Amino acid sequence: MRNILIIGAGRSSSSLIKYLLDKSTEENLHITIGDLSIQNAQEKTNNHPNASAIALDVFNDESRKNAIQQSDIVISMLPAHLHIEVAKNCLEFGKHMVTASYISKEMQALDAAAKEKGLVFMNEIGLDPGIDHMSAMEVINKIRENGGKMLLFESFCGGLVAPESDTNLWNYKFTWNPRNVVLAGQGGASKFIQEGAYKYIPYHKLFRRTEFLTINGSGKFEAYANRDSLKYRSIYGLEDIPTMYRGTVRKVGFSRAWNVFVQLGMTDDSYTIENSENMSYRDFTNSFLAYSPSDSVELKFRSYLKIDQDDLMWEKFLELDIFNDTKKVGLKNATPAQILQKILMDSWTLASEDKDMIVMHHKFGYQDKQGKHQIESSMIIKGDDQTYTAMAKTVGLPVAMATLRILNKEITTSGVQLPIHKEVYEPILKELQEYGIHFIEKKVPYLGYNPEAVIG
Amino acid sequence: MRNILIIGAGRSSSSLIKYLLDKSTEENLHITIGDLSIQNAQEKTNNHPNASAIALDVFNDESRKNAIQQSDIVISMLPAHLHIEVAKNCLEFGKHMVTASYISKEMQALDAAAKEKGLVFMNEIGLDPGIDHMSAMEVINKIRENGGKMLLFESFCGGLVAPESDTNLWNYKFTWNPRNVVLAGQGGASKFIQEGAYKYIPYHKLFRRTEFLTINGSGKFEAYANRDSLKYRSIYGLEDIPTMYRGTVRKVGFSRAWNVFVQLGMTDDSYTIENSENMSYRDFTNSFLAYSPSDSVELKFRSYLKIDQDDLMWEKFLELDIFNDTKKVGLKNATPAQILQKILMDSWTLASEDKDMIVMHHKFGYQDKQGKHQIESSMIIKGDDQTYTAMAKTVGLPVAMATLRILNKEITTSGVQLPIHKEVYEPILKELQEYGIHFIEKKVPYLGYNPEAVIG
Repeated sequence: MRNILIIGAGRSSSSLIKYLLDKSTEENLHITIGDLSIQNAQEKTNNHPNASAIALDVFNDESRKNAIQQSDIVISMLPAHLHIEVAKNCLEFGKHMVTASYISKEMQALDAAAKEKGLVFMNEIGLDPGIDHMSAMEVINKIRENGGKMLLFESFCGGLVAPESDTNLWNYKFTWNPRNVVLAGQGGASKFIQEGAYKYIPYHKLFRRTEFLTINGSGKFEAYANRDSLKYRSIYGLEDIPTMYRGTVRKVGFSRAWNVFVQLGMTDDSYTIENSENMSYRDFTNSFLAYSPSDSVELKFRSYLKIDQDDLMWEKFLELDIFNDTKKVGLKNATPAQILQKILMDSWTLASEDKDMIVMHHKFGYQDKQGKHQIESSMIIKGDDQTYTAMAKTVGLPVAMATLRILNKEITTSGVQLPIHKEVYEPILKELQEYGIHFIEKKVPYLGYNPEAVIG
Repeated sequence: MRNILIIGAGRSSSSLIKYLLDKSTEENLHITIGDLSIQNAQEKTNNHPNASAIALDVFNDESRKNAIQQSDIVISMLPAHLHIEVAKNCLEFGKHMVTASYISKEMQALDAAAKEKGLVFMNEIGLDPGIDHMSAMEVINKIRENGGKMLLFESFCGGLVAPESDTNLWNYKFTWNPRNVVLAGQGGASKFIQEGAYKYIPYHKLFRRTEFLTINGSGKFEAYANRDSLKYRSIYGLEDIPTMYRGTVRKVGFSRAWNVFVQLGMTDDSYTIENSENMSYRDFTNSFLAYSPSDSVELKFRSYLKIDQDDLMWEKFLELDIFNDTKKVGLKNATPAQILQKILMDSWTLASEDKDMIVMHHKFGYQDKQGKHQIESSMIIKGDDQTYTAMAKTVGLPVAMATLRILNKEITTSGVQLPIHKEVYEPILKELQEYGIHFIEKKVPYLGYNPEAVIG
């Protein structure tokens, strides 16, 4: 029996665990699921004979080390900043490791030591990062192998609600951590390059600098720039590419309305509001508007944010009930972002029958002897239900597939890795197709970076 | 002879040093001026027999300790974050200390120890903080002593250029550290309370939420909210006051134009621009605007910022030459804020004959048996020349006066102090009048917080 330890049995680990349990007899696997809550871990075992549940507090050195020592490979589904202690123990005890998170500086620092011990520390192998890297590298390498030179790479991804569950004016529900949605885009200007020109967008303009994209059969979406696109040039070996842009996908109209929260200051997580517990939703809204002895909060809001009387966006705010003077915030010493999250969760929490949807879309522009060409490649995945969501499938399946391949010595390149090499992405993208996760690729006329699609 | 050590012989210490040297024979003082540059220190002694210059690197423990040991009192004119090592040595060697900076947490932590040794650590005794505290507390205490209850306190201060030297469209020049001007308002939302309602303004809206104020004889100004006004409630003993607001003064129209830099992201100091050294001013401006293969940077700028064709604000940007494609930035790995500072210094540096001006304005609202009343109190100070600037006088003279009074045991309350007690503010405000630094007070009808004066 080969022992796989999974640390963190949250929502996004359901498909990962199911995949491994389904293969466990044939592949001779024992799966240990460790979670702070043993009940949580137990549930995820589904009473499978090849699975066991343990209580695992990652801050408890002894229990963490014990669990890692008894495994052959460790999957950490913890929040990203908690991987590092696990990684250090994996190094100490000679275990491979897999995560779906961005490689942190601390993780990168273990590269030489992992290589020396012949250990694979595979990271960024979920959805985004993960499937984005793999699907992009497959096309980019194909273009290069055929003698093409990359001119443009744009990549878009978003976690949305499926059309059949899309029941609010924002066309959005929380399909993953709501806190990350409220704080999205904070922590520095977005950076990218378009036709050779470096571009920088500050947070407070991010949601007014969206681009439209049309995905065959799924209609029109919009995207805002996703942090630092520039660093992907070296990761993908595209140092001289004139256009490199990564964006986050929303349904059209979301960003312009979200921008109102940004402009007001409601997404700020850096200070607490006085007397937050006892204030009404209306008081909260009013605290970002100028004082007036007579004017209504509604009119001050519309005047300050320049929302015309006939602007459909207005209905979006009414729908969220932010002018209600009886609903209480009920959170002590809360930041604006925490209060906004609570208000949004009233409206944007998935109902039990709701399904989520993942959208990923790439644009590749290149030049060869025949001229300039463009390929567009799209993936749209819907969740099965509230357990096997599109998010759980697209994050968990690549993690599980990589884990099994590392165990089976099919993925062997050691060190701190991400899935940009053929050895990894070719077999995994192929196997993902069996689970309905695949891209539709089409050739389109070369457009280059098309500023016609830019709003504002 | 009593020895006074002044650490840091920058521009703002000229009036401070002159005051002490002028009094040195009569008061039996020896002034030691310590600076990283001995030339700098030497110049400031003006060859006065009661002064000496020393080279003092505040990061060199031995030279710092030596200098402090040989003094009776230490004035630190260093940047605020450098006071703490000096303060610890003052504690160790039993010396009093004076600064013009806000009390940091680290400084506050020395309070009990300073009290135990009977040492006065007087802080926030420059202009703002300093004269603002003293002039406010004088009026507030007078109101209280007469049985009045404070209803409103608004306080405004700004360092500007004198009208006779006001030669650009922004009505502004750098009269102190340009870097602080570029970064002003960053580091968290502004907080205040108006008629009992807490208000929060995020940085990106700060310069559009200005208020107007009229100062008799000096015309109309505008002010934007200055950081956290709420904490002054406890400092001034005004815990239950319904209106508490502190603002930074500019000439009318400055803030709306400055807001354009904020909106673009040009004041960001958190990342560096690619290839900043070789870019032109025009390239820099263009890096915050959407890509276009054909549209001009000028039109993109006006369209994005919604600057109408007939808006006078447009001329302000032309004056700064930000669309020039031959002027090079010339700074390696520079942040947007550093580049913007360089561009502004081309236009806003004081000429040798220019004079600066300090504006301070308070509004006090209160209630007594006769009803509600309001007092307005204003101070306008112009610089004599480029050495004895309004800034140097208003920052340095209160520091000097407090130092002498501590030496003469007229100010004796020990511990980490700020000038909110009569013992300090009464004699110093009186003596400041001899130097032309005084407030004009007038009674006005009670207005309360007057929202009519609010823009946007």
